[in-house]
Amino acid sequence: MTSWQPAEIAWDQAAGRAAAPGISGSLRTGSELSAARFRLEPGATVPRHAHPNEEFGQVLSGSLELDVGGHVSVLRAGAGFLIPRDITHAARAGQEGCVLLECYAPPRDPFPPAGGQS
Amino acid sequence: MTSWQPAEIAWDQAAGRAAAPGISGSLRTGSELSAARFRLEPGATVPRHAHPNEEFGQVLSGSLELDVGGHVSVLRAGAGFLIPRDITHAARAGQEGCVLLECYAPPRDPFPPAGGQS
Repeated sequence: MTSWQPAEIAWDQAAGRAAAPGISGSLRTGSELSAARFRLEPGATVPRHAHPNEEFGQVLSGSLELDVGGHVSVLRAGAGFLIPRDITHAARAGQEGCVLLECYAPPRDPFPPAGGQS
Repeated sequence: MTSWQPAEIAWDQAAGRAAAPGISGSLRTGSELSAARFRLEPGATVPRHAHPNEEFGQVLSGSLELDVGGHVSVLRAGAGFLIPRDITHAARAGQEGCVLLECYAPPRDPFPPAGGQS
């Protein structure tokens, strides 16, 4: 390798950025995928949107109401989800907020796109 | 969509499979990435190996000693990591064991490959 980037991602030390009102996130981008960790304040909403990246998510703490193509489920800490590309989805954090881990393939960077959606 | 597969991944209800001695995992595969959750018993080792899939990981609980290309670090719950494709790596769970979430792009399925490496 011509340059060495540590494998470890210390999310708490990574610079966060605002993704939407009540949502901040940190991002690490590779060549085939990107990973992000988001903190959502209680009730924070991810507006309805779609993107060409397949999306995997994992609820690390709290809960998330997830709407994927009109199918709504409430995911609690420990649950994951997989959203195919181009499927419209939206989300809202539960009353305790939510910490969410996500991976996108191909990479989704820059992130968030203009407009602040995630 | 011609068929509907729920977005949610209830890892605890997913069928686990042995990946290596002391390691079991569950897998969900998409078109661009695959996601897996592994449980490693205390001291369980992931043999040194490499694969053409880029790999993202997140320590959900416990700790993991990770060797990526000879750079060794100890990751604790909350830390993530990103391993470029074709980089040799190995791992060992700490004395409390480890629950590990991973994403691979492109998908790594079937998993584990013949030989039981992860």
